[in-house]
Amino acid sequence: MTKTSIGVGLIGTGFMGKCHALAWNAVAATFAETARPRLVHLAEARADLAGAKAAEFGFARSTEDWRAVIADPEVDVVSIAAPNPFHAEMAIAAFEAGKHVWCEKPMATSREDATAMLEAARATGRVAVLGYNYIQNPVVRQMEAVIRDGVIGEVNHVRLEMDEDFMADPDAPFAFKNGADSGYGALDDFAVHPLSILWRLAGPVAEVMTDQAKPYASREGRPVETHEIATSLLRLRSGASGLLVANRAAWGRKGRIAVQVFGSKGTIAYDQERMNEFQLFTREGDERLQGFRTVLSAPVHAPYDRFIPAPGHGLGFNDLKVIEAHELLAAIEGKPARIVDFETGFAIEDTVHAMARSHRDQRWTAV
Amino acid sequence: MTKTSIGVGLIGTGFMGKCHALAWNAVAATFAETARPRLVHLAEARADLAGAKAAEFGFARSTEDWRAVIADPEVDVVSIAAPNPFHAEMAIAAFEAGKHVWCEKPMATSREDATAMLEAARATGRVAVLGYNYIQNPVVRQMEAVIRDGVIGEVNHVRLEMDEDFMADPDAPFAFKNGADSGYGALDDFAVHPLSILWRLAGPVAEVMTDQAKPYASREGRPVETHEIATSLLRLRSGASGLLVANRAAWGRKGRIAVQVFGSKGTIAYDQERMNEFQLFTREGDERLQGFRTVLSAPVHAPYDRFIPAPGHGLGFNDLKVIEAHELLAAIEGKPARIVDFETGFAIEDTVHAMARSHRDQRWTAV
Amino acid sequence: MTKTSIGVGLIGTGFMGKCHALAWNAVAATFAETARPRLVHLAEARADLAGAKAAEFGFARSTEDWRAVIADPEVDVVSIAAPNPFHAEMAIAAFEAGKHVWCEKPMATSREDATAMLEAARATGRVAVLGYNYIQNPVVRQMEAVIRDGVIGEVNHVRLEMDEDFMADPDAPFAFKNGADSGYGALDDFAVHPLSILWRLAGPVAEVMTDQAKPYASREGRPVETHEIATSLLRLRSGASGLLVANRAAWGRKGRIAVQVFGSKGTIAYDQERMNEFQLFTREGDERLQGFRTVLSAPVHAPYDRFIPAPGHGLGFNDLKVIEAHELLAAIEGKPARIVDFETGFAIEDTVHAMARSHRDQRWTAV
Amino acid sequence: MTKTSIGVGLIGTGFMGKCHALAWNAVAATFAETARPRLVHLAEARADLAGAKAAEFGFARSTEDWRAVIADPEVDVVSIAAPNPFHAEMAIAAFEAGKHVWCEKPMATSREDATAMLEAARATGRVAVLGYNYIQNPVVRQMEAVIRDGVIGEVNHVRLEMDEDFMADPDAPFAFKNGADSGYGALDDFAVHPLSILWRLAGPVAEVMTDQAKPYASREGRPVETHEIATSLLRLRSGASGLLVANRAAWGRKGRIAVQVFGSKGTIAYDQERMNEFQLFTREGDERLQGFRTVLSAPVHAPYDRFIPAPGHGLGFNDLKVIEAHELLAAIEGKPARIVDFETGFAIEDTVHAMARSHRDQRWTAV
Repeated sequence: MTKTSIGVGLIGTGFMGKCHALAWNAVAATFAETARPRLVHLAEARADLAGAKAAEFGFARSTEDWRAVIADPEVDVVSIAAPNPFHAEMAIAAFEAGKHVWCEKPMATSREDATAMLEAARATGRVAVLGYNYIQNPVVRQMEAVIRDGVIGEVNHVRLEMDEDFMADPDAPFAFKNGADSGYGALDDFAVHPLSILWRLAGPVAEVMTDQAKPYASREGRPVETHEIATSLLRLRSGASGLLVANRAAWGRKGRIAVQVFGSKGTIAYDQERMNEFQLFTREGDERLQGFRTVLSAPVHAPYDRFIPAPGHGLGFNDLKVIEAHELLAAIEGKPARIVDFETGFAIEDTVHAMARSHRDQRWTAV
Repeated sequence: MTKTSIGVGLIGTGFMGKCHALAWNAVAATFAETARPRLVHLAEARADLAGAKAAEFGFARSTEDWRAVIADPEVDVVSIAAPNPFHAEMAIAAFEAGKHVWCEKPMATSREDATAMLEAARATGRVAVLGYNYIQNPVVRQMEAVIRDGVIGEVNHVRLEMDEDFMADPDAPFAFKNGADSGYGALDDFAVHPLSILWRLAGPVAEVMTDQAKPYASREGRPVETHEIATSLLRLRSGASGLLVANRAAWGRKGRIAVQVFGSKGTIAYDQERMNEFQLFTREGDERLQGFRTVLSAPVHAPYDRFIPAPGHGLGFNDLKVIEAHELLAAIEGKPARIVDFETGFAIEDTVHAMARSHRDQRWTAV
Repeated sequence: MTKTSIGVGLIGTGFMGKCHALAWNAVAATFAETARPRLVHLAEARADLAGAKAAEFGFARSTEDWRAVIADPEVDVVSIAAPNPFHAEMAIAAFEAGKHVWCEKPMATSREDATAMLEAARATGRVAVLGYNYIQNPVVRQMEAVIRDGVIGEVNHVRLEMDEDFMADPDAPFAFKNGADSGYGALDDFAVHPLSILWRLAGPVAEVMTDQAKPYASREGRPVETHEIATSLLRLRSGASGLLVANRAAWGRKGRIAVQVFGSKGTIAYDQERMNEFQLFTREGDERLQGFRTVLSAPVHAPYDRFIPAPGHGLGFNDLKVIEAHELLAAIEGKPARIVDFETGFAIEDTVHAMARSHRDQRWTAV
Repeated sequence: MTKTSIGVGLIGTGFMGKCHALAWNAVAATFAETARPRLVHLAEARADLAGAKAAEFGFARSTEDWRAVIADPEVDVVSIAAPNPFHAEMAIAAFEAGKHVWCEKPMATSREDATAMLEAARATGRVAVLGYNYIQNPVVRQMEAVIRDGVIGEVNHVRLEMDEDFMADPDAPFAFKNGADSGYGALDDFAVHPLSILWRLAGPVAEVMTDQAKPYASREGRPVETHEIATSLLRLRSGASGLLVANRAAWGRKGRIAVQVFGSKGTIAYDQERMNEFQLFTREGDERLQGFRTVLSAPVHAPYDRFIPAPGHGLGFNDLKVIEAHELLAAIEGKPARIVDFETGFAIEDTVHAMARSHRDQRWTAV
C-alpha cells in the first residue's frame, strides 16, 4: 500500500497551536494506516518566536506572515489556531489557494464571516474541519453507540452543563473577555462544546429560551459587558426537552462538561473532568442489582486501542486532538470521517446566536 | 424543669403516616429536652386497619373518622398525612378546634384551598407546619451556615434537579398521576422539595420561565395529561440566576435532589441520594491543593449529635422527620423553630403555580 | 393473630444505650408483625440520671442498680449497653434469671469471661444476641444474596478496612484507650466489625498473620501501650486469601468499613461511610458496557421497605439497630433470625485473639 | 542557546515500544527547552514489520537485528522495549557500546541478570533509566510535595493495591503467564509499580511478610504455577507500617493502583484509574467543613502546564512517558532528573524478591 504524505502548515503556536502541533507529530505513530504528514511550514506573528517554535514542533520552515504558509505549494492542509478574529480571512484564503482547512472553533466572531467561510468551503470543495475535539473521545463515541443501538431507548430529555472558574474571581481586573468586543460571554465561549456533543448524541436543537447573567456587574469600576453565565431551555428537533447552562465563574469547576441523556429505557451521564469514564443505567435485569455503572475507557472503545492496548489506563485531552487529526486525514483521503465540518459547525454556532437573540427578546426563539 | 406533654393525633397511616408515627415514637428519646408526646388518637379510613395501625404505632385509640381525632380534647397537635385533596378540610377543621397542625406537603390541590388554609392558620394563631423534611438534614443546615457565614461569598447562581424514575417506564399502564386531576405532574410533585432547600440557601424566586414536557404522549391508548418533566429558568429575588428541573421519568434516579450553589468565593453541591455528605469548594489556600471536599455528616453538624455521637455513621430519611417533629414541638412551646410554616409553604407552592402559568403563557412570569 | 408483648430492660444509657432505646421505641411501628415491646425498667449507674433517662426513653421504671432490672419479673429481655468490663457479670446474671440477652460487642474484655458467657447462654438456652448492627444493613444483606446466588461466582479474595480518626491527633492527651487495660487497640476495637460482615459474605477465617503498629509512641510523656494500627493477612476456611486492616488514627476517615470481595465471575465493594449503596461488577454482557454499578438501597432490598416504600431515600445507622431488635424478637419467638449469636460472636472475637497471638509470635496462627 | 540533538534507537514495537515511540515523537514539541531527538534506528524482530514500523514511528532506518541498533554510531540512547528475557543482554551490550539506556521494567527475569545490568551501568557511567512512568504523573509529583512539605505530617501508615482483571477468567486457556517461567505472578508483574510510587512518597521497605494465592488451581487440566494474588505486610525503613496487595484476577479493575498514605496531620489517597486527581484530607480549619478534597490536575502541578495551559483537562497514560523521556534527556545533559535509575529499580525489584522469599519461608523477611 502506497500512502500519500500530506504537507502541513500551522498558523499560531499558542494553546491550540501547540495542541495541533502535538497532534501532527503523533498521528502517524498512533494510527498505523495513516501516512506520516510532512510538517512543512509554521507561521507565528511574533518574528522572534517563529523559528524557535518551528524547531520545537518539528516544522521545516517558519514565517511571521501567515500568507506565506498558505502560499507554500508543499502545504496541503492548514491548521488555523490564530485568534478568532483572523479565522475568516485565513480560512477563505486557504480554501482559495486550494488547501484543506482545520480551523479552531468558533468559526468567526460574526455570523457574516462564518457564512463567508462556509460558502468558501462549499465553493472549493476542500475538506473543512472545525476543532471540536471533545466529540473525538472514545467514551463519547461509545455513548453515541449506546444511543444508536437503542440501549437507553428513545431519548426524551437532555441536560448540558459547562463550567470553569477562570472568570470567578470578583477582584480580578477588567479583561478583554469582559468587553462586548469579545462576544457574548459564556454563551459563545462555552456553549458550542456541549452542543457539539449533543449534536452527536441527540441531534440538533430546534428552539431555545435563554437567559444570561452577570455575577459581577463591574470590574475596576468599568461595567462588565459580557455575561459569565448563560442558562437555556432547549427543545430538540427530535421532540426531546432539555437544558443547557454555561458558566465561566463557577468556582472549583475546571473543565466540567456534564452531560445527562435520559431515554425510555435508560440514562447516560458523562463529565469531561473524568473523561475516561461514563455512567450508564439500564432498566434491565434483576431490579435488586440495577444501578448506574461506571464504564472505564478501554480498547473495546475504538480508537482507544491505537493509543494503549490495556483498558483503564486513560487517554488525555491532547490525545483527542490526535484522533481529530486522524479523522481529518481520512476525510482528505475521501474516507468516511467523524468530524464537525463547516456545515455542522455553522449550525452549532447558529444555535448560540439564536440563544443570544432569545435573551435579547426574552422569548422562545427558533434556531 | 417540668415539661408539658403534648397529645398527638394522626390522620393517615400510609407512607407519610408511618413516617409521622415513627417520628412521634422517636422524638423524645432522641431529644432529651423534649417532653415525651402522648400518642392519643389515630384515624385510618379503612376500618379494618385502624385498630391494627394504632397498636403498631402505639396510639391509645383509633377511629375510621378523622373528625373524631380533631374533636378529641386530649389531642393538641394533628399530623395530617391523608391524601392531598383532604388536606384543606382537615387542617381548617383542626385549626378551628384549636389544634396545632403538621400537614404533609403540598398544602392543597388548589391555590384557593391553600389560601383558605393559610387564612385559618393566621386567624387561629395555631402552629402550622408543613412536611418539608429535607431541609431538616444537618448537612443542609450546615450548607446554610456556610452561606450565612460568607464562606462561599455572595450567591450568584443556583441549579436544582429533582429526579426519580417511577414514571419512566413507557409500558406502564395509565395511572392516576397521568390524569389532569392529579395536578401538573413533576412540577407540583417534585419542584417544591428543591425549592424548599433553595429558600433556606438563597431565598425566594422572583421570576420563572418554565417549560414542561411529556416523554410519553399516551399510555394504554389514553393521552397522558400531566407532564413528567418540567424545566425552568429562575431569577431569584437576590438577583442570582438559576435553573430548576424536575423529572419523574429519569431512569436510574431514585431520590436525587441535586443542588449546586455558586458564590463569589466558592461553591457547594449536594445530592439527596448521598444525604450524609456535601461538597464544598473555596478559593482559599495553596492553589495546588484546592478542590471540592466531601464533608461527611458528623456531631458538629447539629442536631446529628442527638442521634449518634460519632461522625460519619449516617442519618436516614426517617431521622429527618424526627428533627422536624422536634422543631414543631419547639414552635408549640414558643421557641425559635426551623420549620416551613404555612406562610413559607404557601409561597413555595405559589412559585410552582407561577411556573405552570409561565408554561401556559410561554413567557417570564413573576411569582 | 395474638402477639406476645415482650418486657424490656435496658442497662446503660450512653451511646449504645440510647441506640438500643431508640430501637425499642421504633421496632413495632416499623415492623407491623412485631408486638410492641413494653419498656419496663432502665438502669443507669448515675442516680441523678436514671429517672430522666427513663422518661426520655419511655421506660416505666428506673434504677441505679442493674441487678434490679435483671430481677424484675416483667423483664423478658435485657439490653446490655454498659461498659465492656461489666458485660460478663451482667449477661450471666441475666441468663441465670431466665432472661434473653442483647449485649453490645465485644462480649467481654477477656477470653475467659467470654467463654463463661457463652457457656451460660448454652446452659440456659436463652436467646443471646450480640450487637453487630452493620450486618443488618439491607445493602449488606443484598451483598450476601449476590454471593449466595453465585452472581460473582466463587469468592477467592477479600479485603477489609476499618478506619476512624479519633486517635489520630498526636497531641491529644494520654487516654484510657492508650493503656493496656483497654485491650489491644484497633484490633479489638474495630476488627470484629469487618469480620462480622466477612462472616456473612465469605465465612470464617482459618489462619492469620498479623502486625500491629503505634503511630505515636508516647502521649504526654507516657508510653502508649495499645496499637492504633493492625494489619493482617488472612486465609479463609474456604481457601480464599485476604487482608484486614484496622486503624484508629486514620485522619479523615470517620466510619469507614470498606469491603472488597472478589469472585470468579465478579466483584463487590462497599463502604460503610456510604451505607446506602454498594458496587457490583459482573463479567456479563457487552464488554463495551461493563463497569462497576452503584446499587442504591431500595424497597427490593428487604427490610428497607419497612422503613420507606420509595427507593434511594436512605436508611441511617440507628435504623440498623431497629432491624437487629426485630431479628432478636424473631429469635425469641422461635423464628429464623439473622443475628450474631454468642456462638458466632465468640468465634469472631477468637479470630481477633488469634491475631494478637500472631503479632506476639510473629507467625501464621490458626484461629 | 545551542541544543544538542540526541540520536535515538528503539528495540521493540509492541505495547511499550509504541509508547516509547510516541514519547520520542512528542517530547520536543511538549518541552520547549528539549532538543528534538533524531529518531535514527528501529529494531523489530519480525522482518516483515520492521520497515513499516519505522515509517509509522518516524525512524530513519530499520533492522530485524537489535545489535545493529546498538552498533549504530548515530544512536546515543537505546529504548529497550523487547520481551523481558532479552533486557539484560541488550542493556549490557548497549552500555558497552557507550549508549545510554531506557529500559522497560522489570530489569530482568532473574536477580543475577539484574545484578549484571546494574554493574554494567555503574561501570560505564551511562544514564540508565527504567520505565516507571506512573511516578511521572504530575498528580503523584504533587503528592510527593504534599508529604515533603509536611502537609500531612509524618507518614505512619501506607496501603497499596494494584488490580487488573486480565487473569480473572477461570475458563481462559493456560497461558505463558500461568507457567513458572514467567515469574512469580502478580508479585513481579504488578508490585513494582505501587512500590515505585511508595519509594517516592515514603521511601524504601525494610521488611516484608508475604502470602501468595491461586484463585484457580488449574487451567485446561494443567496446574497453574504462578500466583495471581499476592498480599504483603510491610514495615518501611522509616518505621511506618503498611500493606501491599497485587491481583491480576480482580474482575472489574482495569488499571487500579490505589494508594493511601496516612500521616500525623492528614491523609492522601490516589487511584491510577482516575489519574488526574488525588484526595487530600488535612485536620486544619473549621471542623464542620473538613473532608477529603478532590484535587484535579492543573498547570500548577508541573509539568502538566507543558501539555495544557488550562486546569482539569486531563493528561493520559502516554503523556507520562513523554515526561519520562524529558527527564531521561535531562539526565543525559547532566541536569537533575526525576527518574528511577538502575540503582533504585534494582532495590524495588529486590523488594519483590524478598516478598517471594517471605512467601516461601512463611516468615518476616528483610529486603
